Amino acid sequence: MSELPRKVAVIGAGSIGRGWAALCAAAGWPVTIFDTDGEVLEQAANEVARRARALVAFERAPQGIVERGLLEFRPGRSLLHAVRDADWVIEAVPEDLQLKQTAFERIEEVAGPEALLTSSTSGLPPTDIFARCLAPARCLVAHPLNPPELVPLVELVPGDFTDPMAIARADGYLRALGRLPIALKRAVPGFVVGRIAAAVWRECIDLVLQGVIDVDDLDRAVSLGPALGWAAAGPHLTYHLGAGDRGVPMFLRQLLNSFESWWGALASWQKLEPEQQHALIQLVERTYKGKVDMLRQARDRRLNAMLKALEESRADAAESPPPT
Amino acid sequence: MSELPRKVAVIGAGSIGRGWAALCAAAGWPVTIFDTDGEVLEQAANEVARRARALVAFERAPQGIVERGLLEFRPGRSLLHAVRDADWVIEAVPEDLQLKQTAFERIEEVAGPEALLTSSTSGLPPTDIFARCLAPARCLVAHPLNPPELVPLVELVPGDFTDPMAIARADGYLRALGRLPIALKRAVPGFVVGRIAAAVWRECIDLVLQGVIDVDDLDRAVSLGPALGWAAAGPHLTYHLGAGDRGVPMFLRQLLNSFESWWGALASWQKLEPEQQHALIQLVERTYKGKVDMLRQARDRRLNAMLKALEESRADAAESPPPT
Repeated sequence: MSELPRKVAVIGAGSIGRGWAALCAAAGWPVTIFDTDGEVLEQAANEVARRARALVAFERAPQGIVERGLLEFRPGRSLLHAVRDADWVIEAVPEDLQLKQTAFERIEEVAGPEALLTSSTSGLPPTDIFARCLAPARCLVAHPLNPPELVPLVELVPGDFTDPMAIARADGYLRALGRLPIALKRAVPGFVVGRIAAAVWRECIDLVLQGVIDVDDLDRAVSLGPALGWAAAGPHLTYHLGAGDRGVPMFLRQLLNSFESWWGALASWQKLEPEQQHALIQLVERTYKGKVDMLRQARDRRLNAMLKALEESRADAAESPPPT
Repeated sequence: MSELPRKVAVIGAGSIGRGWAALCAAAGWPVTIFDTDGEVLEQAANEVARRARALVAFERAPQGIVERGLLEFRPGRSLLHAVRDADWVIEAVPEDLQLKQTAFERIEEVAGPEALLTSSTSGLPPTDIFARCLAPARCLVAHPLNPPELVPLVELVPGDFTDPMAIARADGYLRALGRLPIALKRAVPGFVVGRIAAAVWRECIDLVLQGVIDVDDLDRAVSLGPALGWAAAGPHLTYHLGAGDRGVPMFLRQLLNSFESWWGALASWQKLEPEQQHALIQLVERTYKGKVDMLRQARDRRLNAMLKALEESRADAAESPPPT
């Protein structure tokens, strides 16, 4: 299982598919990307090269390897052409169960018998996605975040028929790409990331629609507040460290009452009505109008800077014992 | 209001109070800290000095200024001694409405008429906290995160009788300390951070109690996944950038169905029953047993490294236009 894929096929050339392709190409791996929409596919070819080269500028990949990968990167003429000699097929079509089922049905028809097949779904049930596959043992979810070439986490989620060897193989490929694969023990709706994201987004929508805080103040508050804290230590560790030396029992004693009162006060709606959608769109677009390209570049620059800082901090810690 | 405080009093010498004291002392400001528990107060004196000096090691504060601040840092002999000549009194007693009301009642009796009074509560209603104050116009909530000397965000939350000038004054003090104060337009239970933290923690507890993922895998997944993303761009901006160039309307079109299905599936319990508390404590303690000091140092090192990276990334962006 330590062998790397000789070729990767990415099926679906939207934002996530392009990110996967950029990531694999930047590792020097031959990649073919395919989309049934010819225009989307054409745009993707340029953007994958741009995003792969951005990893050179970020000092995340050596130029020689990226250019070698890009020499062997191409849009597929057909699904067959993209998939037939790939060792790893990454599905990244839109988030719709029917579309994904159809995609896997067709991928399976043309893929080699040994190919690993992964879905980029952010939360559809893996067993349902692979329901029409004849050989679902080699199928699993590998869910990246946006942009996949920068955020390290990839959730690995098995379907009912996934072979543990397929998980191990995906884990190996992803680690070779510098990713952090985390395997869930079983699938739940939204997996781990989607549930946490849904819980956060609902509050964030509610707070701006209720007029408690402006969109940009909320974004800054989360960025330089709880998100920064959780990026330095995950939530359970954060609260374990949050009450002096006495850990989570003391934290519960000091703050569970507060949390229980907040749990009772959180937003609990499960549908964003059209008028709420409209209000949200207005608030967000007004806040960030005309700055989207600049903001995306700034986000990527910050992501890269923080990643580098975390990598160096880890390397420093490995070299020397922590100061006392 | 651009004048800096000539002296700060911190009332309550737990983890948050010590952080406030370390932050102010490291800025060279004279600080007196007081706690009714003499033992806690004695421990605090050592720890404040250690935490202030750690900011020198992190290159966040110049040694000369920190040592000057520490020369004028002392435990108070009494509330009166701590508060009487302070321009800013920071309340950081335990999170209990009665305790906070009593603290403010007593602080007001001995504070100078011009002193700014702030509460570190993470979510109690400001108007209730200041209910027994005769002059609540100068009172507001300034809620820091843990550890206050590193995480930049401070939530400013007015009570019904808070004077906007008091908010402006707190804002000035906090910016002088290198903090990011964000003013809420009005108080809601848990403010902004507490609500988002409560939403996240409930899911994180539920996911480990349901056996979907282990505690350390969950912490890593959040750290190197959504938290890193939100630290680079807050939640609203993240989703605005999440669907190519077409922003939040396209994101809603592509993913609102998914989010709506997850909202319906999220944990909705509002109380952590004793047996759940017990199970959570067991899981967290087993995961991080015997490593708390090391983990706290690692967290602080990572926080500092990411903060520095964000500051440099911002400085670079200010110097030159973003690459195209």
